[in-house]
Amino acid sequence: MDRPAKDPRPDPETRPMRRRRRAARPRPGPDTGRYRRLVNPYANLEVLSADQVAEIHRAALDILADDGIRVLLPEARARFAAAEATVDEGEQIVRIGPDTVEQALATVPEEFDIVPRNPERRVTVGGHHVLMMPVGGPPHVTDLVRGRRAGTLDDFESLLRLVQSFDVLHTTTPLVEPQDIPLHVRHLQMTRSLLTLSDKTPFIYSRGRATVADCLEMVRIAHRIDEEELLEAPRCYTVINTNSPRQVDVPMAQGILDFAAAGQAVVVTPFTLAGAMAPVTLAGALTLQHAEALAGITLAQITRPGAPVVYGGFTSNVDMRSGAPAFGTPEAVKAAFASGQLARHIGLPWRSSGVSTSNTPDAQAGYETMMNMVGAVFGGANLIVHAAGWMESGLSASFEKLVLDVEMLQMFAEMFRPVPVSEAEIGAEAVRSVGPGGHFFGAAHTLERYAAAFYQPLVFSRQNFGQWVEEGMPTAAARATSVWQRVLEEFEPPPMEEAVREELYDFVERRTSEGGALPDD
Amino acid sequence: MDRPAKDPRPDPETRPMRRRRRAARPRPGPDTGRYRRLVNPYANLEVLSADQVAEIHRAALDILADDGIRVLLPEARARFAAAEATVDEGEQIVRIGPDTVEQALATVPEEFDIVPRNPERRVTVGGHHVLMMPVGGPPHVTDLVRGRRAGTLDDFESLLRLVQSFDVLHTTTPLVEPQDIPLHVRHLQMTRSLLTLSDKTPFIYSRGRATVADCLEMVRIAHRIDEEELLEAPRCYTVINTNSPRQVDVPMAQGILDFAAAGQAVVVTPFTLAGAMAPVTLAGALTLQHAEALAGITLAQITRPGAPVVYGGFTSNVDMRSGAPAFGTPEAVKAAFASGQLARHIGLPWRSSGVSTSNTPDAQAGYETMMNMVGAVFGGANLIVHAAGWMESGLSASFEKLVLDVEMLQMFAEMFRPVPVSEAEIGAEAVRSVGPGGHFFGAAHTLERYAAAFYQPLVFSRQNFGQWVEEGMPTAAARATSVWQRVLEEFEPPPMEEAVREELYDFVERRTSEGGALPDD
Repeated sequence: MDRPAKDPRPDPETRPMRRRRRAARPRPGPDTGRYRRLVNPYANLEVLSADQVAEIHRAALDILADDGIRVLLPEARARFAAAEATVDEGEQIVRIGPDTVEQALATVPEEFDIVPRNPERRVTVGGHHVLMMPVGGPPHVTDLVRGRRAGTLDDFESLLRLVQSFDVLHTTTPLVEPQDIPLHVRHLQMTRSLLTLSDKTPFIYSRGRATVADCLEMVRIAHRIDEEELLEAPRCYTVINTNSPRQVDVPMAQGILDFAAAGQAVVVTPFTLAGAMAPVTLAGALTLQHAEALAGITLAQITRPGAPVVYGGFTSNVDMRSGAPAFGTPEAVKAAFASGQLARHIGLPWRSSGVSTSNTPDAQAGYETMMNMVGAVFGGANLIVHAAGWMESGLSASFEKLVLDVEMLQMFAEMFRPVPVSEAEIGAEAVRSVGPGGHFFGAAHTLERYAAAFYQPLVFSRQNFGQWVEEGMPTAAARATSVWQRVLEEFEPPPMEEAVREELYDFVERRTSEGGALPDD
Repeated sequence: MDRPAKDPRPDPETRPMRRRRRAARPRPGPDTGRYRRLVNPYANLEVLSADQVAEIHRAALDILADDGIRVLLPEARARFAAAEATVDEGEQIVRIGPDTVEQALATVPEEFDIVPRNPERRVTVGGHHVLMMPVGGPPHVTDLVRGRRAGTLDDFESLLRLVQSFDVLHTTTPLVEPQDIPLHVRHLQMTRSLLTLSDKTPFIYSRGRATVADCLEMVRIAHRIDEEELLEAPRCYTVINTNSPRQVDVPMAQGILDFAAAGQAVVVTPFTLAGAMAPVTLAGALTLQHAEALAGITLAQITRPGAPVVYGGFTSNVDMRSGAPAFGTPEAVKAAFASGQLARHIGLPWRSSGVSTSNTPDAQAGYETMMNMVGAVFGGANLIVHAAGWMESGLSASFEKLVLDVEMLQMFAEMFRPVPVSEAEIGAEAVRSVGPGGHFFGAAHTLERYAAAFYQPLVFSRQNFGQWVEEGMPTAAARATSVWQRVLEEFEPPPMEEAVREELYDFVERRTSEGGALPDD
């Protein structure tokens, strides 16, 4: 069933499509500029009732007020104390009353822009805007040519060039950890690469006051602005992971303080794996996530009311047998839907993820990533981190998976475009002229529209079986290798004034000669 | 970022989970019985406005009234004529006025059950019920052990055993064409296999009056009921593909007449590939799909008012370069959302598909299948055909892909389960007892729940990289091979009374000796 009575492929004479060239290499295409700003037109899927959302919110407030959260940074505890939280300095526990939280939530912006050095790459955080963001943070990197290995600055820069090349990726991230660069200068070299090889919104690690200060200075140099001007609008962002359960360590707390003070965007993302660092139930893990996110958001707002913050949800679960983290699970999809509801309940933009467990870019990786993307996209996420290139539960960044995920993201972008309906679009005249049992390949209605009618894939194949066998039966991952190789070959960095470039290099040189800066413990 | 400060895996002493056994083979598990009836709790995603839906419906009615549809079966034209349609016998064109269509729609049941020979396998068609159905109709079959080949009855029966073994698959389909069986007895042998190896809702091909009569007779035998009793409730179903554009051939029209007359379920599915057998625009392809579906539905209702019918949507698009069919495209997702809206507009259950283009069970297959499933599941489909095992644009049924898709379907089934929220579920006591920076592996709240807390995968791996390398770096598809092999080894057919079994075999023998029956042209 469901097969056409005849081969739908027309004779070459009547076919308007140009024949596939043997060596044709698919390209991102000239139209991908429209992927630079994505607005999700769909209703948000929900898994919780309004009462359940309110119950989780209330339970989270109770945890913050009664049990509190351990905050390892004295300055952060002091700020909480000044905002009428109860601080137990011995235990380093901060108990935050609901009034303090509610007051903080009252000053949170619902929506804000981040403007990188190329203002055309401005992104809007909130509303129905969606930012697709690549993998961040793996220690390893892998591709089908060189295999799996510890990440280097060269890998970081290669991945950065790929990210810069695809319009559907809206910001940068710490794509892979450049383990070959000494720790005291790593932040300098990463940020220099970020700012010179990409003009997209830069990510800065919260690894301590001194490293953040260096990175913010470099952002100011790239923008040719002073500290006052930096305060006017977010130009970069950081991700704060709480040390679940109920703990915020020194660099994370410091990051909230420094980014909020500098008016830069903070994504507060508790790391609540149900069954490990969070209760085994989704309700419990979500409540803990919510409590920890509220604590971080509150700290940002008491540091600087109106500081741009994002509610991060990363709740997934462990594997029941091994205790290992599992991503792309059905529980994670429901947790994502619920996280979106919780973020909207408190009026914040919501950050989710596109992650998977698979060790290799195989079918499992495709299914799992899409599962997580279902939770993120149709749950209404504003930021989707790790949406391209994440593999092996986040332990590797994969060149091939990055390309495959870009294909997926471009398909989501196409899915966000409306379906125009009009007399001309319906084409009743074409239906009449073709007649029963005919085909539309040669219809004027088709000829006028076919060139831009459908999404043309970047890496997915539509070869028939015979063509595919002739080509050596490549998997999608194998085809992805040639895509990233070509993109890297053709890469040209975005323009940057030579004076700015020099100043960035000078800054890195000076700070290096001064000994750089080590991350805080 | 987004990595835990510590390895979430606890010491073996504190870990409640049993250690993964080296040779542990994942199993469907004892709980999959709950997958037998799936109810989708989510809101339906929509891509068209109410006005757009009405405009497409109106345009489809105009096509049926003004241009009409070619119906190749004289008896079907006669029935249309009797229902006040205008029939041009020379051109074999039937022009159907909106009143005739509206009258037909008034008698369509919104929801109905199909009851196979095992009443516990009863399925409900309509409402928020979802039936997951395997691949139907490919000429070829493939697996990683034996490669790609023409389908045989042996393959058909093996796939059938797999389908029978997974509770998340709710009906059978014509899984692969058994090309080794002569055409005049193929329907007899396929139906005998369906009815003896499975107790799930059987599919019957509409290949002509005589073959359908044989198959319905066999269904009656399996149920031990007479013709009158068969009329009382649907026991099987067929799929009718119109020969788009605007044509219904002899066996398809005959199938509508015979199934409607016998009170059995008819799924009317136009084969409207945008750019080939349908206009290149989604609005045009959907309008043509709607017109053809309405024509088939109307024919069923004028044959027998109240006949159980389903609105089928199969609109996808061709590849712009080659003209080849493309599945799992963003256009197909939007077409699915729209098709659900059109089906609900006329008050019918909606059938969609889980299909893909890829030639092999690789990452592309995973992404594409999930894309299509997004359209089907979150568009609110009641029947999702080809949701397991479809490959190569429908030209091959894949053993491995069937297993991988079952994993995906079980994950959707888990996603449909609610998130309980209560004080006990939230577990504030556990959060308090674990304390900041601790873990929940040993908490009573965890120990009471962990065994059934999360979905345990059938074939997806959660091994870490080292374990995976030790095992030889198998892809998900390679792991799927051992799953289908094991399921086939352990298969036991569902019970059937010996007398019924004998009667089925006797019937096939008799009809074979009488010369069987050839499909209609």
